[in-house]
Amino acid sequence: MPDRPRLTPAVAATRSAVRDALPLLGGAPALVGLSGGPDSLALAAAAAFEGSRAGVRIGAVVVDHGMQEGSAGVADRAAAAARALGLDPVLVRRVRVEGPGGPEAAARTARYAAFAEAMRETGAARVLLGHTLDDQAETVLLGLGRGSGPDAIAGMRRDAPPYLRPLLALRRAETVAACADQGLEPWHDPMNAVDRHPRVRLRTTALPALEAAIGPGVAEALARTADQVQEDAEALDALAAELAPDLAELAEGGIALPVAALAANPPAVVHRLIRLAVEDEFGRTLSRAQTLAVARLVFDWHGQGGVDLPGVRVVRAGGRLEFTGA
Amino acid sequence: MPDRPRLTPAVAATRSAVRDALPLLGGAPALVGLSGGPDSLALAAAAAFEGSRAGVRIGAVVVDHGMQEGSAGVADRAAAAARALGLDPVLVRRVRVEGPGGPEAAARTARYAAFAEAMRETGAARVLLGHTLDDQAETVLLGLGRGSGPDAIAGMRRDAPPYLRPLLALRRAETVAACADQGLEPWHDPMNAVDRHPRVRLRTTALPALEAAIGPGVAEALARTADQVQEDAEALDALAAELAPDLAELAEGGIALPVAALAANPPAVVHRLIRLAVEDEFGRTLSRAQTLAVARLVFDWHGQGGVDLPGVRVVRAGGRLEFTGA
Repeated sequence: MPDRPRLTPAVAATRSAVRDALPLLGGAPALVGLSGGPDSLALAAAAAFEGSRAGVRIGAVVVDHGMQEGSAGVADRAAAAARALGLDPVLVRRVRVEGPGGPEAAARTARYAAFAEAMRETGAARVLLGHTLDDQAETVLLGLGRGSGPDAIAGMRRDAPPYLRPLLALRRAETVAACADQGLEPWHDPMNAVDRHPRVRLRTTALPALEAAIGPGVAEALARTADQVQEDAEALDALAAELAPDLAELAEGGIALPVAALAANPPAVVHRLIRLAVEDEFGRTLSRAQTLAVARLVFDWHGQGGVDLPGVRVVRAGGRLEFTGA
Repeated sequence: MPDRPRLTPAVAATRSAVRDALPLLGGAPALVGLSGGPDSLALAAAAAFEGSRAGVRIGAVVVDHGMQEGSAGVADRAAAAARALGLDPVLVRRVRVEGPGGPEAAARTARYAAFAEAMRETGAARVLLGHTLDDQAETVLLGLGRGSGPDAIAGMRRDAPPYLRPLLALRRAETVAACADQGLEPWHDPMNAVDRHPRVRLRTTALPALEAAIGPGVAEALARTADQVQEDAEALDALAAELAPDLAELAEGGIALPVAALAANPPAVVHRLIRLAVEDEFGRTLSRAQTLAVARLVFDWHGQGGVDLPGVRVVRAGGRLEFTGA
């Protein structure tokens, strides 16, 4: 262990990433969500350094999920490392993981509840999370396993109040190097080697196979793409939400959209307006195929009959799309 | 070989896909781009059937790239199959594959040139291509190997005049089944087994690894996502192109964009306006990182200096972003 941290490229990269994120705190105190793994430990070190330089108070919260033998010891060692780095306050929270959606989802729910409580207790406005570009690429691909469309591959946001992910553009390997360069000893989660987890299989098998097939840089490309796709979807969601109230007309037993006004928009906006109408009026979310079926009444009109969806019937009549409860 | 084609689910699916695409021909004659492989052979069979029912004249063009031993025989057998299906006219074109970008790119260039010539000769308005959802998923992933952002993963368009891809929503396995069900014997390209091709490695290794990691349906999710991402990007491209001329002002040695008018738009549109300004005025294409650097002069302004890009300098002055040649 060196006497004092060396400013290696990896350490500089983590510090620079935290420095860029600090203005988002607006001077308010924050907590690092610390597992003790290389990502969050590198984040804790950079946040301690940059927070003290900028006069921003940064602490840490360690959540012990109690799901593995020895988890209390892991949490305590992480807390000790955080204190040694100068973070303050440092909290350890023991949670009970239970509830729906499998152990991974239940652990996430319990963890985020503990974060919220720790923020209330300490007056912190934000929790800094150690997710990296590798996590982002995995999240994007996992999203494709659950659905499709811009939302499925949008990934995690860097700035998602109260959470902030300063390291989202860094590679996982950089956080590992930053820990080593500063003499920090991260904990290696044994669950990361259990290949029945989709995320672990992605990391160990599928992403390397993708890189072997189409070249290195796939993770970066996925993460950058997620960024832009998210940005595009947000702009169009906002545009549709702005147009919707002016467009919607009352109809007997439902709501109607004038076809001419609808068709003045590009398909991306029309599809959103159709989905919004059904969501707002009937509380139902249309699939892509259902949305396209309704949109054919606008873009491919040849006098065809209406579209019957679960709970909703859509017909074109009198120059309007009429949505009524079915 | 059965005496007459059976209407199996696979045959019905290919015919239905072609039927949905026929209106886009507007009654004009078309050619099937036929390699003899299962995708284009299933397309040829469905197009022959549906074209004759709809009274639309459909022929075929077979391109012999001359890149493999026996390619002339493969082309002649494909042409004979097309004639037996009732397609008319059926052309065989022998091309010379040469030029930049490697043999695959050169073959594509030669093929598309032969298609264009065949259209002129026969008066066909469209060439129908046999690309499937599997090709689309591969194209999306290959796009990520070349770059990032919505364009990288937009994939192929179903309706890309003069090309039309009626089978883009069908799985490759359905075209194989449709051929078998109709007693058609497709040619199997030996290059599809050569794993130094990125596309082949994707098909044989990376996509199966992805499906093993995150579940079946990844190819469908990728293809559907490509569709929506493409739709979103098109809407925003059109919006930015519409706004750009009203926004741009002359500046000494370049062009300027008023910051207040820019900032009234969401980031997705601002980033496009910045890229358009640089493209139109200086003929240069900004990367994502360069675009974000310029956008910080709008969204993260604290009196910082300008941004120096290759050939272009951007400064914020007098409430405007000024782009000048560097």
